[in-house]
Amino acid sequence: MSATLLINKLRTAAAVSRRLVLNDPVINRTRVAFTARFYSAFMSDSLIFRQLFEAESSTYTYLLADTETKEAVLVDPVLETVDRDLKLINELGLKLKVALNTHCHADHITGTGLLKKNIFGLKSAISKHSGAAADIQLSEGDRIAFGKHYLSVLETPGHTDGCLTYVTEDQSMAFTGDALLIRGCGRTDFQQGSPKRLYKSIHKKIFSLPGSCLIYPAHDYKGQTVSTVDEEKKFNPRLTKSQDEFVNIMNNLNLPKPKKLDISVPANLVCGLHDV
Amino acid sequence: MSATLLINKLRTAAAVSRRLVLNDPVINRTRVAFTARFYSAFMSDSLIFRQLFEAESSTYTYLLADTETKEAVLVDPVLETVDRDLKLINELGLKLKVALNTHCHADHITGTGLLKKNIFGLKSAISKHSGAAADIQLSEGDRIAFGKHYLSVLETPGHTDGCLTYVTEDQSMAFTGDALLIRGCGRTDFQQGSPKRLYKSIHKKIFSLPGSCLIYPAHDYKGQTVSTVDEEKKFNPRLTKSQDEFVNIMNNLNLPKPKKLDISVPANLVCGLHDV
Repeated sequence: MSATLLINKLRTAAAVSRRLVLNDPVINRTRVAFTARFYSAFMSDSLIFRQLFEAESSTYTYLLADTETKEAVLVDPVLETVDRDLKLINELGLKLKVALNTHCHADHITGTGLLKKNIFGLKSAISKHSGAAADIQLSEGDRIAFGKHYLSVLETPGHTDGCLTYVTEDQSMAFTGDALLIRGCGRTDFQQGSPKRLYKSIHKKIFSLPGSCLIYPAHDYKGQTVSTVDEEKKFNPRLTKSQDEFVNIMNNLNLPKPKKLDISVPANLVCGLHDV
Repeated sequence: MSATLLINKLRTAAAVSRRLVLNDPVINRTRVAFTARFYSAFMSDSLIFRQLFEAESSTYTYLLADTETKEAVLVDPVLETVDRDLKLINELGLKLKVALNTHCHADHITGTGLLKKNIFGLKSAISKHSGAAADIQLSEGDRIAFGKHYLSVLETPGHTDGCLTYVTEDQSMAFTGDALLIRGCGRTDFQQGSPKRLYKSIHKKIFSLPGSCLIYPAHDYKGQTVSTVDEEKKFNPRLTKSQDEFVNIMNNLNLPKPKKLDISVPANLVCGLHDV
């Protein structure tokens, strides 16, 4: 399948795109009280879903596939766990179409390049604002189709310029990368980081999703696997603050540089050490 | 709520109990092709579910709760992550009724005792064959109720004498402890371990659940979070062997003794260092 077929570019103005997403009556049916569901009632028999973890960088990789066509996408694969992921994809009889990155990671090397070497026709995808090479350069409103399902692209910059959040078609799951973490968020002190942009991305984009939408981040360091929009609105210690307080917190974290920064970023700019 | 109310003892003969579980027409409706669903379509708006991870011992803890009554159970809590779990339980407004252990663990100390010190009225539960102290001594066919939901008890010995598998009422999820792991199983070389018993437990009990039933083990060491009965029947490198081959594999693993064996087992026999 070509990139043209895979990606149905909406390319509408941001306002129109947001109206499509937020005012869709089908989607709004899913707006339920925050305690009502933490598991996706919309994850029906037609979707295969797996959350996978890479322990060294505490990264989550997500596999989604259509049960009928077996077409699959993989969000944020990690170089070290490519063999595990390939084995699972093979066992489940899936056809991996697109390896998606939420952004150009600084803490680990993406598995995208190595996966492309192993799976004929596999496309890589990343934000057009990431500066990284990929077969598909994504922007707001784009859709990545797999079988009857698709992921929608929300641009959620602030951790980096090219951070994306991928949202399932029923808005029951959002893969937020390093923008929104469980009770936390990505740092904003390198790679074009901007606390103001991150605050706006989360409040205007991610927090506009249904309260019950499950939040699946790129990382967790405390063994948490999932949250919801409503939970983060209510309990995220940073995002419950005002924008000014948030900016102040983010500008004073004084975090050490990620161990693999100097290796990961150059590698991820070319799809994980390997040519696209 | 008293233990009597919480636990509806079936106490029927094993054959009757198994007939109830396996021949229920409602339950058998869930028997679908193995590729058809890996996510639980039966996890509706009425159940809160969270998988949690403790990195040092690679242990999974599971939180299940009724969205209406907020009654909750916690499977295999770990001492080191009690604060995290208490925080989540508190944030979600849950009333933790029972802390369940799948067995007397040898690799980490249970959080049950510490949880009991923090939550008034919380009951501990473990197999009556475990030799461990607990408020509730469980056996085959018992039910642990929380709101309109319950977990059923399957006795699945072999890793230890007192290993239990907890199954949701719709048989969409099974918490298999150290009996069945993803593409693996618990060791059988200490604590009354018996490869023959483990093989029978898995083949006769766990593999009799619907093929689509999600397998949630007590541990994973490769970042895998979930599997299904059908997947393990097809791809588990040990359980796809004959009983004799399985026994031979298990008797020749030559694994080192768990680091915390001498601390964990005595502590877990009394509910995790703390009095019940």
